[in-house]
Amino acid sequence: MEARFPMKARITVTLKSGVLDPQGRAIANALHSLGFESVEDVRQGKLIEVQLKATGEEQARAELDAMCKQLLANTVIENYRVELVGG
Amino acid sequence: MEARFPMKARITVTLKSGVLDPQGRAIANALHSLGFESVEDVRQGKLIEVQLKATGEEQARAELDAMCKQLLANTVIENYRVELVGG
Repeated sequence: MEARFPMKARITVTLKSGVLDPQGRAIANALHSLGFESVEDVRQGKLIEVQLKATGEEQARAELDAMCKQLLANTVIENYRVELVGG
Repeated sequence: MEARFPMKARITVTLKSGVLDPQGRAIANALHSLGFESVEDVRQGKLIEVQLKATGEEQARAELDAMCKQLLANTVIENYRVELVGG
């Protein structure tokens, strides 16, 4: 059995451009109400930090990619990005 | 009046360590059910992308910091990080 090492990944899931973002819109309106007039647009996304054990970086990336496609992102309307950030 | 330039900021809001994260727990359980046994822990955070006009980097950072404290993060239980990512 291959040795597995602890790794940490940061996954960001964002709405594709063109997809309406009512939550982002609400935040922008709230910021305007608070006096932050300089705000032009807000988009809200998700940040998912995953700690996992993997045999190497390549295997970890493949597994994280599968997780995004199967559960973490809705690829019809969302983009995702996986960053490995160390153990 | 000073010139203002378009800027884009990426704000990440994460739960402080020690604060329970039931949403992250639920994601970890779902990943285990899908066969991703290598997953040890999941934490869910927020990603907020803000487009704004600012006179400079320093002024933008000060304004974004105020937005986080007043609206975007609950600093009792959450940490936030602001990154400027260009126009």
